[in-house]
Amino acid sequence: MQALPGFRDFLPEDYAKRNYIFACWREVARRYGFVEWEGPPLESTELYKKKSGAEIVDQLFNFTDKGEREVALRPELTPTLARVVAAHERQFKKPLKWFSLGQFFRYEKQQRGRLREHFQLNCDIIGESDLAADIELVALCIDVLRAFGFTEKDFVVRISDREFWTDFLHEKNVPAERWDELLQAIDKFGREPREKTAEKLGDLAEPVFATLKSGGKSQKLSKLLDALRGRGLADFVAIDIGIVRGLAYYTGIVFEVFDRAGKFRAIAGGGRYDNLVAQLSNGTVSMPALGFAMGDVVLGELINEIPLAREAMEKAITNDAKIDIYIVIAKEERRADALKQIQHLRDAGYRVDYPLTSEKVGKQFQTAEQLGARVAVLFGDEWPQLKIKDMTTGEQQLVTKDNFTTRIESILR
Amino acid sequence: MQALPGFRDFLPEDYAKRNYIFACWREVARRYGFVEWEGPPLESTELYKKKSGAEIVDQLFNFTDKGEREVALRPELTPTLARVVAAHERQFKKPLKWFSLGQFFRYEKQQRGRLREHFQLNCDIIGESDLAADIELVALCIDVLRAFGFTEKDFVVRISDREFWTDFLHEKNVPAERWDELLQAIDKFGREPREKTAEKLGDLAEPVFATLKSGGKSQKLSKLLDALRGRGLADFVAIDIGIVRGLAYYTGIVFEVFDRAGKFRAIAGGGRYDNLVAQLSNGTVSMPALGFAMGDVVLGELINEIPLAREAMEKAITNDAKIDIYIVIAKEERRADALKQIQHLRDAGYRVDYPLTSEKVGKQFQTAEQLGARVAVLFGDEWPQLKIKDMTTGEQQLVTKDNFTTRIESILR
Repeated sequence: MQALPGFRDFLPEDYAKRNYIFACWREVARRYGFVEWEGPPLESTELYKKKSGAEIVDQLFNFTDKGEREVALRPELTPTLARVVAAHERQFKKPLKWFSLGQFFRYEKQQRGRLREHFQLNCDIIGESDLAADIELVALCIDVLRAFGFTEKDFVVRISDREFWTDFLHEKNVPAERWDELLQAIDKFGREPREKTAEKLGDLAEPVFATLKSGGKSQKLSKLLDALRGRGLADFVAIDIGIVRGLAYYTGIVFEVFDRAGKFRAIAGGGRYDNLVAQLSNGTVSMPALGFAMGDVVLGELINEIPLAREAMEKAITNDAKIDIYIVIAKEERRADALKQIQHLRDAGYRVDYPLTSEKVGKQFQTAEQLGARVAVLFGDEWPQLKIKDMTTGEQQLVTKDNFTTRIESILR
Repeated sequence: MQALPGFRDFLPEDYAKRNYIFACWREVARRYGFVEWEGPPLESTELYKKKSGAEIVDQLFNFTDKGEREVALRPELTPTLARVVAAHERQFKKPLKWFSLGQFFRYEKQQRGRLREHFQLNCDIIGESDLAADIELVALCIDVLRAFGFTEKDFVVRISDREFWTDFLHEKNVPAERWDELLQAIDKFGREPREKTAEKLGDLAEPVFATLKSGGKSQKLSKLLDALRGRGLADFVAIDIGIVRGLAYYTGIVFEVFDRAGKFRAIAGGGRYDNLVAQLSNGTVSMPALGFAMGDVVLGELINEIPLAREAMEKAITNDAKIDIYIVIAKEERRADALKQIQHLRDAGYRVDYPLTSEKVGKQFQTAEQLGARVAVLFGDEWPQLKIKDMTTGEQQLVTKDNFTTRIESILR
């Protein structure tokens, strides 16, 4: 039997990679003063319909539960965030800076490399309408990627402003009810045949194409770029008015992160969604908000692709897997004595391993090496003395059982 | 809108508790040389039927997916473990010592405090039939709980041996096909009316009750107890032949952990399940195995109940939430300079926060205190000098912007 199609088993080696990604995500989000939270993996289907319209159901991993509730494995975190924040907003001092690491689901046709689950880092700022929050969020997104060893040669954050386009449509006297549809058409530019986009845009096709070609200008975007330049991050970003993002709920700055080589799908994406909390709380709570999500799958592919990032990951994983001490039991008569010491060493916080059953001494030292033990301690004929081997230098010495902990500490320090 | 019934939102305060529990779980499992892995939250329903019979479906959070697959949100990890190990066993040196932190689901009637999801630590040893593995596993379970600050006054591991009862039934000439049913009846002793158990046991009621009263003896259990005594852990365990565990797949040593006051449901439980890998792999792979699971809900209740454990948790959470540095922006003209330094400090790995928009200096220092900042740095009239405040001692000093990092480092060290 196998895992369901589109679902991954994380064997220890896979888990170590996932854990490395999670650790970097968490580390950088915390540096930025973000605090961690999490929602449930299952939500009412209504929550997603309310946000994205009934069409979303086609892509959901949804079902009817035994209590006749329409429920869905969550495809994204933002609706849950809006729900939670609307319910508890009085508890917290604004702005909230929240992050979360979680698993998300979608029911997609199976394709090579297309999974039905993935993990995401979500970082959101709630309750701040100032551009300073947008700048902080983009900087965080950049620094998260830099933590993996990526440089400005490896990725770029393409930044745009939805307001640029809504202003544009307003200026052209397009009625507001058509905006969503037109923004989606602009979003698809370059990803579908030009004629198809032209057809969708109608009269607007020419001015839109001209604007995309010349590049749009906006004071807001210039200010954002200046601020990032001041922080030394300008080389990681590009203003690209062609980024609109398909989701209807974005209201301001939007951005997507791509590998420079253009080999992969987007690494991350996000933006400002000032109306969503109000929309999902039926207008009872209104709060400006913005956030981004970064998935583990494309990120993992890019780490494998970029030598510096791959080596950093491999080194971190190797170090993290190492145990401190391997106990070699050379004589079975010493097993009970060994176990007493193992208990003490573990109580002191050391990572200690030993053979559960009788094994040849040579094989035990081999295991000690495979496990990356820094020290091996041999319980054998020398008892009540113990042979301690520094596995890095190869140096060996005999110590009495009463002061071997001190000796081990000095090697491990 | 709320979370679905039986599902939890983890607001930052709740998440911090969960994270604390996860960190202790992970820390101790790693001290024992266990390595982390994880399976998917959704599996084929067949996997659980195969292990536990068709009745299990009543308790599952199961449904038919859009591809007409019968699937279920996993109720436990063991079937996934057996599946994964059977598929990959040649890759690994035995015994495997694997642990996992994950979320599990069941569709239960809603009751106060009964959730439909919870998190579990699962620790398993695969490929070792020797009692040494059972001893190691029980010791790990004890040490995990000790890491939370619990003592032998707070909890007890009740240990039994299924073989004791199968030997007993064999001796009484009970046909093997009735064993499961009778073991389940014995398991329920004390939790349902005595007459009901007696009825289920029939002729065996008297000898079973007598055995439960006098306490059973077994060489294996004595050996296990001796070994734990040698490790200084005897006070944490009690032999209790009344523990059978309802699940049919256990084959040897079984154990359950309870709070001494008898106030809560079981904190953890596990045992040896030597036939399960073979059963789930249709006999293609056969491997002895054993493991235990510990849930976050009862554990969380017990932590709240025991002052030493609660204080340890609160202290850990408070420390973990602290940021390193708060940047006070006293003059908006200095914001750009401040942000440049913030970027440097975060790049150096510090946790740094600051006000996104203009705020009164007094309020900023208040925020610095609330966030637990160790250092506050004021960007104001003194520029290009900065005022540094050690938030612990209250001591303030002026430094030039070029050597303020060194000064901050010396405070934070």
